[in-house]
Amino acid sequence: MSRFWSPVVQTLTPYVPGEQPQIQRLVKLNTNESPYGPSLKALQAITNSTNEDLRLYPDPEGLALKQAIADLHGLDPKQVFLGNGSDEVLAHVFQGLLKHDDPILFPDITYSFYPVYCKLFGIEYKTVPLNNLFNIQIEDYRISNGGIIFPNPNAPTGSPLERKSIEGLLAHNGNSVIVIDEAYVDYGTESCIPLLRGATCPENLLIVHTLSKSRALAGLRVGFAVGHPALIEGLERVKNSFNSYPLGRLAQTGAIAAIQDQAHLKTTSLKVIQTRERLLKQLQLLGFKTVPSTANFIFTSHPARSGEDLYQSLRKRGIIVRHFNLPRIKDYLRITIGTDQQCDELVSALQDIFKD
Amino acid sequence: MSRFWSPVVQTLTPYVPGEQPQIQRLVKLNTNESPYGPSLKALQAITNSTNEDLRLYPDPEGLALKQAIADLHGLDPKQVFLGNGSDEVLAHVFQGLLKHDDPILFPDITYSFYPVYCKLFGIEYKTVPLNNLFNIQIEDYRISNGGIIFPNPNAPTGSPLERKSIEGLLAHNGNSVIVIDEAYVDYGTESCIPLLRGATCPENLLIVHTLSKSRALAGLRVGFAVGHPALIEGLERVKNSFNSYPLGRLAQTGAIAAIQDQAHLKTTSLKVIQTRERLLKQLQLLGFKTVPSTANFIFTSHPARSGEDLYQSLRKRGIIVRHFNLPRIKDYLRITIGTDQQCDELVSALQDIFKD
Repeated sequence: MSRFWSPVVQTLTPYVPGEQPQIQRLVKLNTNESPYGPSLKALQAITNSTNEDLRLYPDPEGLALKQAIADLHGLDPKQVFLGNGSDEVLAHVFQGLLKHDDPILFPDITYSFYPVYCKLFGIEYKTVPLNNLFNIQIEDYRISNGGIIFPNPNAPTGSPLERKSIEGLLAHNGNSVIVIDEAYVDYGTESCIPLLRGATCPENLLIVHTLSKSRALAGLRVGFAVGHPALIEGLERVKNSFNSYPLGRLAQTGAIAAIQDQAHLKTTSLKVIQTRERLLKQLQLLGFKTVPSTANFIFTSHPARSGEDLYQSLRKRGIIVRHFNLPRIKDYLRITIGTDQQCDELVSALQDIFKD
Repeated sequence: MSRFWSPVVQTLTPYVPGEQPQIQRLVKLNTNESPYGPSLKALQAITNSTNEDLRLYPDPEGLALKQAIADLHGLDPKQVFLGNGSDEVLAHVFQGLLKHDDPILFPDITYSFYPVYCKLFGIEYKTVPLNNLFNIQIEDYRISNGGIIFPNPNAPTGSPLERKSIEGLLAHNGNSVIVIDEAYVDYGTESCIPLLRGATCPENLLIVHTLSKSRALAGLRVGFAVGHPALIEGLERVKNSFNSYPLGRLAQTGAIAAIQDQAHLKTTSLKVIQTRERLLKQLQLLGFKTVPSTANFIFTSHPARSGEDLYQSLRKRGIIVRHFNLPRIKDYLRITIGTDQQCDELVSALQDIFKD
């Protein structure tokens, strides 16, 4: 605390990310990283760019990367906005598109960074409860609002909405921006990106993606948003008033190669899906109740043990998962889908815990 | 323009960085990059980290890099704040430390991003004119203010202040933060970092550095601030409400190696200083009037030609420098110090221009 802080700083409750332990032997199932490495083509592209050209600033607009993303998704490069991880993209979205007179809406159980952004930028918000099965009830969002944001599938539940539900919401919500955070879309959720193609692109739909999950590049820090060119232009204005060069040369070159390697994405995502379904059955045998997930994580609880107890007991056994000490979900664990072997270690540890 | 933009977006006039031309044959003297490549140890460290661990998030706190910076400068790691380039550091500084009731102060001729940050975050400011020799008159800052910020040496003039002038200002300015942007300090300016060491560290002095200039890593995007731990804590709160992981794995590992390679910094900075002094004499022979510079650029004008004319004439000859079409300085060019050979090409081009 210091009298030199701007007044808003004293009111902030910063987001706390899942820990990045320095111990190598742990089974790390807490931050939804891919258990498989990134595309070898991405690694090669980075290696090829690790040379004296690093003395030069990167392309401030990232045009080649925008083009690669546009090509992949059937969009125009003017529909693409880039950021230093999707968290930075979201920060600019909150400041640039979601600060209006009316409060914005998001689920009561969702990505816990959203209320943090609101505090930072002085944005009013109202949370909309998930139903008892932890599903978003899309019709609950048909109220006056300054914007709507949620992940699809939602986090930390893993629960998806169909594209047609979001189309229905769009039809009823013409006066504010709807932001769909598709960080986890590649594990079995219908993407809304097709809605953005061509002349029928809605003026008020923005979709956010990251390369930190299915592209296995959390360590490189690249995210993007796609939407109507006018929304993108608003984000560019904020970005260019904040940092001209958010993406370095290695991030840009690595991301281009990763985006172009769809085969790697598909192979690794499929493996994660298969492991998820396998793990679900194993957890069911142990008595866990798990929310149906189309993400690379599951949200699960056990009637006989508290979430805190399970979290600590797993930790003692070298397995780190995520536990949120928050209303409604304090007895749940969010478990990242690792390799089959990592998930087997998790199941063994749980068997051991339930033996006690 | 879109009705979905937050109201502030419509008022923004984003910063325009110097262009990053894609043509390789140009002599690029417009964005103050080092003409020499980065430390080979930094390149090696990046190469060693380009592996499947990129699937994992980086250390959100960057503790190893903070320690390396603290070790170099004789500080505690709690006195170090990291950012995705010093532009991001400055953005957090404006939002977190410079937004108060009173307007902040900076020179009328200085880094043109400062008023852009003020617009983005709704900060009032007042500019303080440089004198006719383009020097900061430090006593002009002894007025009520919400904060003071300037680069030392100043940009785009290259003109330095002695440390004792800044100490004098500190003695008169106990109620707001003084931010010294030392982006160009390594080319012959006295750093204020020694003031931060030990128990006498002022509560209200913050110093910002970048690895984009003397460390030749503009393409990697790393900057930092050093100051009193309470100021750093305020910045961390803002950063952790904006983006948990601003520095990727490659940026952190490359920056550590670069910070530890002082020999490379000293050798390349000395070469730049020698070339600067050589170029100054050549420009003098051509009739240029140049502001005395301790930066890796010079600020110069010619009585017989307008700045715009010189800028365009050089551009036609494949040499890009920076020209600001702003009051008081529109007849000046800011020229980055390149290699001796690049500067000779510049001088030849100017000789050619004056032949016409």
